[in-house]
Amino acid sequence: MGIIGSTIKPFTAQSYKAGKFVEVSDTDVKGKWAVFFFYPADFTFVCPTELEDLADQYADLQAMGVEVYAVSTDTHFSHKAWHDSSPAIGKINYHMLGDQNHVISNNFGVLREGQGLADRATFVVDPDGVIQVTEITCEGVGRNAVELVRKIKAAIYVREHPGQVCPAKWEEGSETLAPSIDLVGKI
Amino acid sequence: MGIIGSTIKPFTAQSYKAGKFVEVSDTDVKGKWAVFFFYPADFTFVCPTELEDLADQYADLQAMGVEVYAVSTDTHFSHKAWHDSSPAIGKINYHMLGDQNHVISNNFGVLREGQGLADRATFVVDPDGVIQVTEITCEGVGRNAVELVRKIKAAIYVREHPGQVCPAKWEEGSETLAPSIDLVGKI
Amino acid sequence: MGIIGSTIKPFTAQSYKAGKFVEVSDTDVKGKWAVFFFYPADFTFVCPTELEDLADQYADLQAMGVEVYAVSTDTHFSHKAWHDSSPAIGKINYHMLGDQNHVISNNFGVLREGQGLADRATFVVDPDGVIQVTEITCEGVGRNAVELVRKIKAAIYVREHPGQVCPAKWEEGSETLAPSIDLVGKI
Amino acid sequence: MGIIGSTIKPFTAQSYKAGKFVEVSDTDVKGKWAVFFFYPADFTFVCPTELEDLADQYADLQAMGVEVYAVSTDTHFSHKAWHDSSPAIGKINYHMLGDQNHVISNNFGVLREGQGLADRATFVVDPDGVIQVTEITCEGVGRNAVELVRKIKAAIYVREHPGQVCPAKWEEGSETLAPSIDLVGKI
Amino acid sequence: MGIIGSTIKPFTAQSYKAGKFVEVSDTDVKGKWAVFFFYPADFTFVCPTELEDLADQYADLQAMGVEVYAVSTDTHFSHKAWHDSSPAIGKINYHMLGDQNHVISNNFGVLREGQGLADRATFVVDPDGVIQVTEITCEGVGRNAVELVRKIKAAIYVREHPGQVCPAKWEEGSETLAPSIDLVGKI
Amino acid sequence: MGIIGSTIKPFTAQSYKAGKFVEVSDTDVKGKWAVFFFYPADFTFVCPTELEDLADQYADLQAMGVEVYAVSTDTHFSHKAWHDSSPAIGKINYHMLGDQNHVISNNFGVLREGQGLADRATFVVDPDGVIQVTEITCEGVGRNAVELVRKIKAAIYVREHPGQVCPAKWEEGSETLAPSIDLVGKI
Amino acid sequence: MGIIGSTIKPFTAQSYKAGKFVEVSDTDVKGKWAVFFFYPADFTFVCPTELEDLADQYADLQAMGVEVYAVSTDTHFSHKAWHDSSPAIGKINYHMLGDQNHVISNNFGVLREGQGLADRATFVVDPDGVIQVTEITCEGVGRNAVELVRKIKAAIYVREHPGQVCPAKWEEGSETLAPSIDLVGKI
Amino acid sequence: MGIIGSTIKPFTAQSYKAGKFVEVSDTDVKGKWAVFFFYPADFTFVCPTELEDLADQYADLQAMGVEVYAVSTDTHFSHKAWHDSSPAIGKINYHMLGDQNHVISNNFGVLREGQGLADRATFVVDPDGVIQVTEITCEGVGRNAVELVRKIKAAIYVREHPGQVCPAKWEEGSETLAPSIDLVGKI
Amino acid sequence: MGIIGSTIKPFTAQSYKAGKFVEVSDTDVKGKWAVFFFYPADFTFVCPTELEDLADQYADLQAMGVEVYAVSTDTHFSHKAWHDSSPAIGKINYHMLGDQNHVISNNFGVLREGQGLADRATFVVDPDGVIQVTEITCEGVGRNAVELVRKIKAAIYVREHPGQVCPAKWEEGSETLAPSIDLVGKI
Amino acid sequence: MGIIGSTIKPFTAQSYKAGKFVEVSDTDVKGKWAVFFFYPADFTFVCPTELEDLADQYADLQAMGVEVYAVSTDTHFSHKAWHDSSPAIGKINYHMLGDQNHVISNNFGVLREGQGLADRATFVVDPDGVIQVTEITCEGVGRNAVELVRKIKAAIYVREHPGQVCPAKWEEGSETLAPSIDLVGKI
Repeated sequence: MGIIGSTIKPFTAQSYKAGKFVEVSDTDVKGKWAVFFFYPADFTFVCPTELEDLADQYADLQAMGVEVYAVSTDTHFSHKAWHDSSPAIGKINYHMLGDQNHVISNNFGVLREGQGLADRATFVVDPDGVIQVTEITCEGVGRNAVELVRKIKAAIYVREHPGQVCPAKWEEGSETLAPSIDLVGKI
Repeated sequence: MGIIGSTIKPFTAQSYKAGKFVEVSDTDVKGKWAVFFFYPADFTFVCPTELEDLADQYADLQAMGVEVYAVSTDTHFSHKAWHDSSPAIGKINYHMLGDQNHVISNNFGVLREGQGLADRATFVVDPDGVIQVTEITCEGVGRNAVELVRKIKAAIYVREHPGQVCPAKWEEGSETLAPSIDLVGKI
Repeated sequence: MGIIGSTIKPFTAQSYKAGKFVEVSDTDVKGKWAVFFFYPADFTFVCPTELEDLADQYADLQAMGVEVYAVSTDTHFSHKAWHDSSPAIGKINYHMLGDQNHVISNNFGVLREGQGLADRATFVVDPDGVIQVTEITCEGVGRNAVELVRKIKAAIYVREHPGQVCPAKWEEGSETLAPSIDLVGKI
Repeated sequence: MGIIGSTIKPFTAQSYKAGKFVEVSDTDVKGKWAVFFFYPADFTFVCPTELEDLADQYADLQAMGVEVYAVSTDTHFSHKAWHDSSPAIGKINYHMLGDQNHVISNNFGVLREGQGLADRATFVVDPDGVIQVTEITCEGVGRNAVELVRKIKAAIYVREHPGQVCPAKWEEGSETLAPSIDLVGKI
Repeated sequence: MGIIGSTIKPFTAQSYKAGKFVEVSDTDVKGKWAVFFFYPADFTFVCPTELEDLADQYADLQAMGVEVYAVSTDTHFSHKAWHDSSPAIGKINYHMLGDQNHVISNNFGVLREGQGLADRATFVVDPDGVIQVTEITCEGVGRNAVELVRKIKAAIYVREHPGQVCPAKWEEGSETLAPSIDLVGKI
Repeated sequence: MGIIGSTIKPFTAQSYKAGKFVEVSDTDVKGKWAVFFFYPADFTFVCPTELEDLADQYADLQAMGVEVYAVSTDTHFSHKAWHDSSPAIGKINYHMLGDQNHVISNNFGVLREGQGLADRATFVVDPDGVIQVTEITCEGVGRNAVELVRKIKAAIYVREHPGQVCPAKWEEGSETLAPSIDLVGKI
Repeated sequence: MGIIGSTIKPFTAQSYKAGKFVEVSDTDVKGKWAVFFFYPADFTFVCPTELEDLADQYADLQAMGVEVYAVSTDTHFSHKAWHDSSPAIGKINYHMLGDQNHVISNNFGVLREGQGLADRATFVVDPDGVIQVTEITCEGVGRNAVELVRKIKAAIYVREHPGQVCPAKWEEGSETLAPSIDLVGKI
Repeated sequence: MGIIGSTIKPFTAQSYKAGKFVEVSDTDVKGKWAVFFFYPADFTFVCPTELEDLADQYADLQAMGVEVYAVSTDTHFSHKAWHDSSPAIGKINYHMLGDQNHVISNNFGVLREGQGLADRATFVVDPDGVIQVTEITCEGVGRNAVELVRKIKAAIYVREHPGQVCPAKWEEGSETLAPSIDLVGKI
Repeated sequence: MGIIGSTIKPFTAQSYKAGKFVEVSDTDVKGKWAVFFFYPADFTFVCPTELEDLADQYADLQAMGVEVYAVSTDTHFSHKAWHDSSPAIGKINYHMLGDQNHVISNNFGVLREGQGLADRATFVVDPDGVIQVTEITCEGVGRNAVELVRKIKAAIYVREHPGQVCPAKWEEGSETLAPSIDLVGKI
Repeated sequence: MGIIGSTIKPFTAQSYKAGKFVEVSDTDVKGKWAVFFFYPADFTFVCPTELEDLADQYADLQAMGVEVYAVSTDTHFSHKAWHDSSPAIGKINYHMLGDQNHVISNNFGVLREGQGLADRATFVVDPDGVIQVTEITCEGVGRNAVELVRKIKAAIYVREHPGQVCPAKWEEGSETLAPSIDLVGKI
């Protein structure tokens, strides 16, 4: 089966969040919208720019009821050490999950075989734990948190307005479509 | 193995392009950058808005050396009929592949099980036939061709400039990074 | 086991009939005589002549208590678009089933391997869901709805008159046979 | 794979034809058009009416270059005995194959499981040994040799005129179609 | 296990007997002595001489409480037709079973592989359905019904007189043996 | 495959014949006609009457070129001891094979399961080692050497006169049949 | 597992003992000490000297409560015949078991593969059916019943005197040993 | 296959012999007669009496060309330590093999399952490495070296005098038998 | 799974301890701290120096509540004999387990394949039967009992003081660490 | 097979050493003595004390020709960041291998199942890549680099002086042993 429409699989991991170590599992995730934001490794190069870019959107996402989980195959000890020493990473208030046993990366199918590192991959998960949007870029191509927010808004809109869909490049507030037999072949 | 970094698999299909029926195979695709743009069905609703959005970028993409292949599980006969009757689809000059035998949709892992329809999925493929970027959205969420073009530009840039990487929300012309041991833990 | 005498297998599909989209399943089919009329693709050449030929017999078939289901691997969206634009197809009042997931074509064993298209195949199904008559012709050879009606009449006659059988080229109203030991070797 | 388009499988059988016992194999069949005409049993009821109906067309079929092979699971001894004693069967000049070992009936998939009898099934085979047309009716429904001849004529026409196809209820001498992109959606 | 001492396996078949078609199964056979008399084919050469030879003993066998079942892979239709036309076969009053599905011939292990014909084989079955005597001859060697009757008489005698056995070439009325330790090595 | 028409399998055994121990194998058997005459055990009751009955025919069989091999699961030592002490067995001049390892009894399928004793079974083998006639009787029913000789004569006749067959109860010198299409259904 | 310490397996056989045929099974054997004395064949050479040697000890063994079972793959019929005719064997009063189905020889692992004959093997079995002593010699080497009796006496002594063992070449009445930690390394 | 007649399997072990450690393998054993004399453990009770009993026969055995190998699952280190400290074991001049890896005990099938100790078992092996005689006694029953020597002499005699066999309790110099057909049933 | 953290497996063995033979099983071991001290063989060279070195620490270990089990593949008989004769081994008061059936050596994974000898391996087991420390050296390298005692003390300390850990080369009485998020990256 | 005596398996990893990132593989390791020093995680508690303890011995080890490889499942990026920020780790001049793909930890069997962290395990590897010494302690028990150096010296000594072995707690310069038969049981 495709990844879209599948439910997230069980996991338990240590997270570094706001100066504390906390345990997070798949059951903690469900109940609200969530973003899983995978990146290859702590202390590297593109990763901190993306994590900082996402940190800038975190207040808005929280306001929309969306939690964020950054994930790499480093430990939570390493996440804390990075958070302590890096100005960019120091801005982060969301979860940083330690996936050194590779369970979460394998659950989402983004462990690079033979490398022990995760892909640069994003997953938007709805409150039922079902994956609705995904995006993966190759090693040297950074993501764009603004576009991510746009898609999350559309996904939330569609869930809250049955019978309506968001056309291409839809932005919050613009028009949607209501599919019906009369529209068949008419667009 | 993850989808990123994998090579496209063999296929042969009939395409409707510019008023003609032509046969297209995986070997035709290789040698230049390509976008595979899957959508569920001809004569529906979100699909034409996305296809039109992409049609607006096609001239620029061609200028960058990028070919575009729209794919659904409809036949090339159906694609032509739709092109003939729809004002939005009538603008399309890129390939519309008939995948009624499901080979291409299965190759990219986006056939919705039991439905016989493809996901709303995009794949950027480099001239070696290797997938570099992917994005999938759920049924009601339209994609954004402008963001797609941004990522393609970054991917092309990285391929052409070994040793450099594009940070988050990079736009053509802005700064890139050159990873080295001295940058470890410094960003 | 041979196809004759076998029972139709489960399916669920979207149908375009008389300006509406309706869901049809195998349980809807049972209870009256039915014709499954497979053809390769919408918007093609021999197919519309056969579908129109059958449309001309539809009123009579309905009078005999026979429902008709045309089937191709196109979607119901495509069926409607074709119905809207083609004068021949526009005459159709029977069901046009969308089999883009290939379930019905595989159920009847008529999916052309590797092509994703159905054979030019007809099946007459009795009210118990049992196949009584079948006919398949190669790509370029059109069927004959009049002969089909002749065979349906014979099948109905035999079901309603136990102990009687219809000889070669039997037409409604002509004589039938009653097999008995006295006829052995006498014809 | 479907039956249409498949090649006949190897067999060897004793035939009664024109007062002689001759051996016939699949290699004898190839090289000209052939009809395999299966029926359940010698000395029964519908069968002789169908065999006689076909006997009436045999001269024409021979003129078209078509050979006919009647097949049941009786022996060639039984075929001869029936030919000797029945007025209807006595008219037959074509081959009557003894299939008491069930090889041919199984080859064409028409052996009724558990009964040791063949279905009432017809197959038109082209000079390459490829099946082009098939028809099967249930126990009590007799076939129609005139319609069979119509379909054979269409199949021969299509083979001899590449690029043309025969529409529904086509008769020798009437118009055919030449598929092209311009006809898509126009019929 | 050897054939002697084994129980007959289940079957159901159509029989031609005394101008009627009747169904016979293994449960009908049990309860009295029975002879299964296999032969290759109706309308052939050695077979009718053997069947006639056995017909001459049928009255005596009936008097002894023994039923007779002739079996070939022809149908019951064919048996009747042969009975109608052959003076030798016309004398038969016992059962002629149609084994065109090969079940009985396979049950007794006498189907000639690849030929679809039974061996020239005889089996004497006791009232419990257990095989007591068997005989098979090659294609051109006819059996002898008188010797068969001698063996049936001996088998019946042994069943009815526990503790006694019939020596070589024993005939009804001649002496039997009563095995005991005193006879060991004394004959 | 049935036993008739099968070739004897390899064996090597010690034989007692005419006051000597000799080794006999399947290759010694081939080249002339042979009878394998199985019996349950030395020093028992029916067995010696059958062996004596066959001894009376041995001179004639030798004159016809037929060798005889009596077989039980006793050793050749036991055979000699029996021959020394029994008046009936003392008459025997043919081979008595020791089958205490059960190879020959298993080769011919006549080892009574669980008992370690052979059935009362006869096999006529032609000079090619192919079995042409078989007969098995239950424990208490003795065979008849005269009828055995009749069948051997018929088998030899058929082998020496291709195109002829021996009808039921044929005796040396009486008429045979020559099968042809003209005889079909005429006997 | 080794043979010593294993329990005898189930069997049922006919025995010749003291002018009678009696059935013996493994359950009859248990409850007292037993000797199984295998030999290759009746009517041979070394075997009778060993059986006679053992017959000379039988009265003593009976007095000690030990039963004796001679076993070969001959039948009980053969055993009686041998007993009737041989002066040496005529002395035997113990059981002679017929093992023509090879069950007992296989149970004790002494059937010579491919020969159908047992080894020259002895087994001493205690009243629980457990094997305590075994001895096997090759074809031409006769056993010694006196040494066998010595070992049986030792085995009985050990069973009846827990805590004592019989040293090398122990004879009835001589000293035994009582193992203890003080004896470790002291003998 | 039985143990008698089988060839010894490959092994390599350290031996203590005459104040030295030497390596011994199966290839060293072949070429002369050999005795393998298994016992449970060094420093125990019955074992030293048996080993001493055999030591008394070693000079004679050597004169007959027979080598002796005592075997337990102790190491060669333990064998030497025992030899140093025990008066009985100190007499031994033959090989004492260390079988702590259980290879030899398993080769001869005498490892007591779950105990890691060998049975009290003797094997006489001829110069071809073939086992000719075996004997095993239970835990508390000592063997007898004199009887072992008697059997070895018989085995050597039989090998050196083809056509002769040694009857029961044969001693060197007494009469042997020459089996022939004339002796069958005469002893 | 790794050896550390695994629970010891079931075993039963004879032990020589303080002049007695006692049975020891895994259930006896649990309930207090234990050392399993494997060595290759009795009566060898490095082994006694290590066993003596450990004997010097045994009083202290007992005081700490730790039992010691030396293990080799020799029997308990051999252990006693060695204890009787060696000055170094004579000092031992702890258990010497006989593992001649290899169960314990296999349980701990230290049986040298093909040699039947254990590695030079130490395991510290806590009162729950869980292995906490292990050490293995190659053939010629002796262990150090003082360092072993240091590690046992640390393991006991950690078990008794939850939340504390012992740093490198920790000695009884020196400082320990209490891990907390504040120490992350600070040592 | 046990770990001692096994050869290290193939791996390739990034190492942080002396301010550089270098690739290290198993083939680089061979040719000199090596220590693999596994620990659970960067930025933790016991680990840095052990790594510092080992750093203090590194100069001596290098002088002895021994290379050191510290290994955890962190990346080389993380190792460098830790080296930059920790006073204890900053002293390290040996290799720090990044094993985030778990290959090396699995090769040596020390990956804690489900945790993605390595055990606290040490392996001494000789110049042939063969493991000679190992030691593993549980989570809270620190190792002792001085004792490690003692064992490495002994292992080097034994390799360089064939025929000599190092007794318990051997220190450089003290006496060794030369095993011979004369020493058996004498220590």
